[in-house]
Amino acid sequence: MQTLHVDLGERSYPIHIGAGLLSQGHLVVEHLKSKQVCVVTNTTIAPLFLPTLRSQLTDFDLLEVILPDGEEFKTLDTLSTIFDALLERNFSRSCTLIALGGGVIGDMTGFAASVYQRGINFIQIPTTLLSQVDSSVGGKTGVNRPLGKNMVGAFYQPKAVIIDTQTLLTLPERELKAGLAEVIKYGLINNQDFHYWIKANLPKLLAKQSEALTYAIRTSCAEKAAIVAADEREGGIRAILNLGHTFGHAIETAMGYGVWLHGEAVAAGMVLAAELSLQLCRIEPKVLAEVRAVIEAAGLPVTLPEQLDSKTFIQLMRKDKKAEQGQMTFILLDSVGKAAVVRDVESASLERLLSGD
Amino acid sequence: MQTLHVDLGERSYPIHIGAGLLSQGHLVVEHLKSKQVCVVTNTTIAPLFLPTLRSQLTDFDLLEVILPDGEEFKTLDTLSTIFDALLERNFSRSCTLIALGGGVIGDMTGFAASVYQRGINFIQIPTTLLSQVDSSVGGKTGVNRPLGKNMVGAFYQPKAVIIDTQTLLTLPERELKAGLAEVIKYGLINNQDFHYWIKANLPKLLAKQSEALTYAIRTSCAEKAAIVAADEREGGIRAILNLGHTFGHAIETAMGYGVWLHGEAVAAGMVLAAELSLQLCRIEPKVLAEVRAVIEAAGLPVTLPEQLDSKTFIQLMRKDKKAEQGQMTFILLDSVGKAAVVRDVESASLERLLSGD
Repeated sequence: MQTLHVDLGERSYPIHIGAGLLSQGHLVVEHLKSKQVCVVTNTTIAPLFLPTLRSQLTDFDLLEVILPDGEEFKTLDTLSTIFDALLERNFSRSCTLIALGGGVIGDMTGFAASVYQRGINFIQIPTTLLSQVDSSVGGKTGVNRPLGKNMVGAFYQPKAVIIDTQTLLTLPERELKAGLAEVIKYGLINNQDFHYWIKANLPKLLAKQSEALTYAIRTSCAEKAAIVAADEREGGIRAILNLGHTFGHAIETAMGYGVWLHGEAVAAGMVLAAELSLQLCRIEPKVLAEVRAVIEAAGLPVTLPEQLDSKTFIQLMRKDKKAEQGQMTFILLDSVGKAAVVRDVESASLERLLSGD
Repeated sequence: MQTLHVDLGERSYPIHIGAGLLSQGHLVVEHLKSKQVCVVTNTTIAPLFLPTLRSQLTDFDLLEVILPDGEEFKTLDTLSTIFDALLERNFSRSCTLIALGGGVIGDMTGFAASVYQRGINFIQIPTTLLSQVDSSVGGKTGVNRPLGKNMVGAFYQPKAVIIDTQTLLTLPERELKAGLAEVIKYGLINNQDFHYWIKANLPKLLAKQSEALTYAIRTSCAEKAAIVAADEREGGIRAILNLGHTFGHAIETAMGYGVWLHGEAVAAGMVLAAELSLQLCRIEPKVLAEVRAVIEAAGLPVTLPEQLDSKTFIQLMRKDKKAEQGQMTFILLDSVGKAAVVRDVESASLERLLSGD
């Protein structure tokens, strides 16, 4: 087991990473403040991992809330289900919520914990590679509204994150690859050595080799933790974590959520960001080739979906919340291992890029 | 105009109190971060005060959300109305929410501000005496669930509180008196001089004399601010603010919400707390007489509702979230101007008190 400490003053917490941690109940128990514990999970995850977690918590007053699986249930109505289950069992302010599942479960459970009786204990057990390397650090929680994703939420830190790499053994290959997109991102934005390590170890990662996964997850979390610690409320540098994401969100919206996985859209988005970086003379062609090569080797898309025409795409990009009058903000690359927030990109540059001129 | 500073480190904010402040737009404008401003109010308050506020904000992109009036609308569904209105107008993270109304509007708007895009600016303009002396300090925001009041919410501080005592001129007399219950509370729990000032000035307060109201509001807010500053997240001493409230909540629940106003229930509750304090030999009979006298002089109830039998009442008290196995926590008086949190009151004492033995 490896442990990483996320340093946020009085909101600091540990991230434990290793094979079989779900069976090490003490990692959960040491953070509980009372007998009242509520596990929130979904219908896909529950049969896989809930029995093991349950067997570690036999001394506790355990409530299990099993939600339907899917981003379309990331709503205030689903949150109400959690609140009412807690209230029916008279769960007090000293109870603990445990999120067992992927990003949707983590985002909703964290948000529920942040507002139930104005804030209760919260532990994360992420079970997908994406949630392990992304949502387990940063404290972003929330739900969607019909007019926007993640538009309602809170910054709220867990008491601990427990990452059992064995949960990835049942993860579909496509989701594993989508998670790798975010792992690759950490190398590209801030850590050249990690980038070349990923490139060399992609076969082990794709084969779900535990040691390689542990190292990749630990390094990804450490990169994110360092950036978040420098900018907890997302005022500045934290934005580099969004490399590929403005493009990626537009792809997801255009295709309809779920058609492309988030990681797939981010992968293609990172290639586009590299292409724009080249066009704006921030990088040389070999850097673009390097970005494209690692993403391709991970089995991820490197071009826009064929069905998507560039006009629709540009309109969607403009609508993104980060766009501001005429000029747009992008995360661009300056080299492998170095990204920058660039606030004054002319939308004409974007149009030139996407029209292929 | 008088200004009080609530000292909470980087979350500190001013409370401005005076006659006619609604016409002093600069008090609002200096806290706005962008042109996007949303006023949340209700159908009762809007015709009275919205035109004045609107006239101060002609240079801004003003959105007005007018909700139905009543505690029964303090729900997540009503919050969704606010979120969707903001999203439809593309209101960004730099927008500001203004709560114009009583406690329900303040609680909901503050909660909406705390979670919209994970936290935006928030200004409070409370228009009832209760909300001016109670909810404008402390940062408690939230909504109700069918199984419990204020069970979902956040601690979230406004950027400023603007109290225009002229808004009280249209306040129904019964609501003014209910607000006075909380003013009286501040004297009883922590400030003997203020208690005797209130007693001497009740006729002026009941006549809505602006200078007396300003002093009473300012002193009440200062008392609450000092207690909250010492205990922002309600770990200990802050509980003395609940004098009369455990009894009061049980009265409200038993009668059905809205039959007795919150302040009326708290008034009777404070007399009961004094009676229990006497029974437990914490005070002398003359202190109880003093408590009863000031509450009676304010035109507030000093006994339980006649319809309420003591058995039902005791059961409701036990169900209150502050009750714990066999022993109950009460806020009791040690003298006029001094309250204490007492955690080990036997429920038998309560039964003796209420059965009149």
